[in-house]
Amino acid sequence: MSSSAELDSVDGLARYRDLFLRSDDVVAYLDGNSLGRPLAASAARISAFIEEQWAGRLIRGWDESWLDLPIRIGDELGRVLLGAAAGQTTIGDSTTVLLYKLIRAAVDARPDRREIVVDRENFPTDRYVVEGIAAERGMTVHWVETAEDVVASHDTALVVLSHIAYRSGRLSDVATITAAAHDAGALILWDLCHSVGVAPVQLDEWEVDLAVGCTYKYLNGGPGSPAFAYVASNHQATLRQPIQGWLGSRAPFEMGQGYEAGAGIRGFLSGTPPILGMLAMQDMLALIDDVGLGAVRAKSIELTTFAIALADELLPDAVLATPRDPALRGSHITLDHDGFARIMPRLWERGVIPDFRRPNGIRLGLSPLSTSFAEVEVGVRAIAEELAV
Amino acid sequence: MSSSAELDSVDGLARYRDLFLRSDDVVAYLDGNSLGRPLAASAARISAFIEEQWAGRLIRGWDESWLDLPIRIGDELGRVLLGAAAGQTTIGDSTTVLLYKLIRAAVDARPDRREIVVDRENFPTDRYVVEGIAAERGMTVHWVETAEDVVASHDTALVVLSHIAYRSGRLSDVATITAAAHDAGALILWDLCHSVGVAPVQLDEWEVDLAVGCTYKYLNGGPGSPAFAYVASNHQATLRQPIQGWLGSRAPFEMGQGYEAGAGIRGFLSGTPPILGMLAMQDMLALIDDVGLGAVRAKSIELTTFAIALADELLPDAVLATPRDPALRGSHITLDHDGFARIMPRLWERGVIPDFRRPNGIRLGLSPLSTSFAEVEVGVRAIAEELAV
Repeated sequence: MSSSAELDSVDGLARYRDLFLRSDDVVAYLDGNSLGRPLAASAARISAFIEEQWAGRLIRGWDESWLDLPIRIGDELGRVLLGAAAGQTTIGDSTTVLLYKLIRAAVDARPDRREIVVDRENFPTDRYVVEGIAAERGMTVHWVETAEDVVASHDTALVVLSHIAYRSGRLSDVATITAAAHDAGALILWDLCHSVGVAPVQLDEWEVDLAVGCTYKYLNGGPGSPAFAYVASNHQATLRQPIQGWLGSRAPFEMGQGYEAGAGIRGFLSGTPPILGMLAMQDMLALIDDVGLGAVRAKSIELTTFAIALADELLPDAVLATPRDPALRGSHITLDHDGFARIMPRLWERGVIPDFRRPNGIRLGLSPLSTSFAEVEVGVRAIAEELAV
Repeated sequence: MSSSAELDSVDGLARYRDLFLRSDDVVAYLDGNSLGRPLAASAARISAFIEEQWAGRLIRGWDESWLDLPIRIGDELGRVLLGAAAGQTTIGDSTTVLLYKLIRAAVDARPDRREIVVDRENFPTDRYVVEGIAAERGMTVHWVETAEDVVASHDTALVVLSHIAYRSGRLSDVATITAAAHDAGALILWDLCHSVGVAPVQLDEWEVDLAVGCTYKYLNGGPGSPAFAYVASNHQATLRQPIQGWLGSRAPFEMGQGYEAGAGIRGFLSGTPPILGMLAMQDMLALIDDVGLGAVRAKSIELTTFAIALADELLPDAVLATPRDPALRGSHITLDHDGFARIMPRLWERGVIPDFRRPNGIRLGLSPLSTSFAEVEVGVRAIAEELAV
């Protein structure tokens, strides 16, 4: 195994790390898949926005540019990272709210089908939203263990899966699973929270119906930055989301009587877009566009491969919950060990910041443009040292 | 009538105007009820947050303070401006999404009642959300013209009204209308978008059931900053909102199977809170707490009274759509005239920024802490001059 110093010295993306703001007391940030570091460009963009746009343009900013921002950024996200032609992606609301809107839109369009399929490995909010909608629509939740276990039937309205599982990091074959769902006449929604910005996504080519995802992980949008929603163009005329707000209406500023959904992806908006929260993600999107997702994905695989090799050597009692085949994993790995809960506070005190996932997992999220191989080594060594105390 | 110079010279709140960032090309900003100006303190707070909190604390920030922010700010808002005891108010989502969540919670708790009452003067998003929910729950919308026309019956599940009407500026008697709704066994939801921060609100004393409101108008939270929701404590155990997300669950970080709503107001959260968007409103809240809402309301009445007197003198052909009794209006006035649509672009070119509300209204929104009497005079004179061209 090469040393982290050797790997960093030949890393063609190493120089981009200096673009991110840093924290003096953090020696290994291994949670970029939960909250990405801010780019210095984003800090500057937000300050400039407040002075020049909010204070300077005031209400005129809405007409001049802000109202278009959800779809303008959505189109850019579609082009750079989602393999989505323009007019299918928008930014707004939280992931949870967008899941609610799109899942409701899908099941309401399939009233003759009575089940929603979801896996137990899916992120809590995805499962909770599905449970709530199934209860309110008198539908059944068909539980499977993992995305790979999905079997859609003639009674399946919708399948809800994550492209990359939030805990195990398992990466699913979207094209194959989507085709199987379609063969049963079901729609499918993919949660891209853990893949957007770090793994290849081709929504149009894969014929995905619906997708949502976070922007505060690998898109570095900041804590609680708004999520994105993708609705394939062939569904936009028939699917109707339930939260009828003025910004999703045909002509918001007519303020007329009677809601009429806006055309295309605009009909999937609801309230006033959260502009401040949309600013930072644009810088990361531009950076990934510049670097190329292929190079990002290549470094991601090197980082997770290196982390697994180190764990094999230094943490022989920990169990890897993540696939060893790099083609089957995203950019985080999870190791399980009964001693991990105990050592988490000590790791954070040392400035080593992984995440903990119950019941006993340490998750190392490796954001390729801001994480060094040295950080991975410092982190895994710290875990081994604290376990030995 | 006193001159604007005289009024400004004796205005005890005039000195606070210097706390706001200004725009060089704007000579009269008369739209603070649509988008409040940023406080310089907010620009500083947001920059510091990015450097010290997001970059500095990284994921640790969630545990240390961010997760509590929706309810911490909510409690402060409740104390300073809503007359709401702690534990009933939270920040998050857009006004539209919060309307959806609370209206659904209310009507789902009254399954034996089949109508929702709403007025045609209400803001479009309120009406559209009501229409959508009525359609999906098989209910009837009972339309009235204004909030004062409401008659709740034994079949009314919920009444949805705005405290101050977005167009006319009419201020409703919340206590009396709420009591009448309760007499019929109905619940009531008040939209406080145009009153919070500028008019007295006593939600607990008035026995209001549910309320929502904006933070980007008189709370100066920035474009699209998240809204707030109030759920009276006596309803929290029985009302259930439909968007079951992880942040509203009993123990989000257990990430367990099966949604269980969090206790109290926390159960009304859904997704990850939009932290960047919550920062600025704290500065305005602190400022109003310092100045006192009584003084803010007093200046608001002086400003609207002065604007109406000027309009009477300079715009004799315009029709005032706002009550002349100051006790019956909020902090904006609307004047109707068939020439107004034509002159709006010219006003904006001159740096005079009111809002236009169809079909023919100019709305002057007068945010007491950032608006001078001179601005009102410049604005009304500019309207008269452009109309004469």
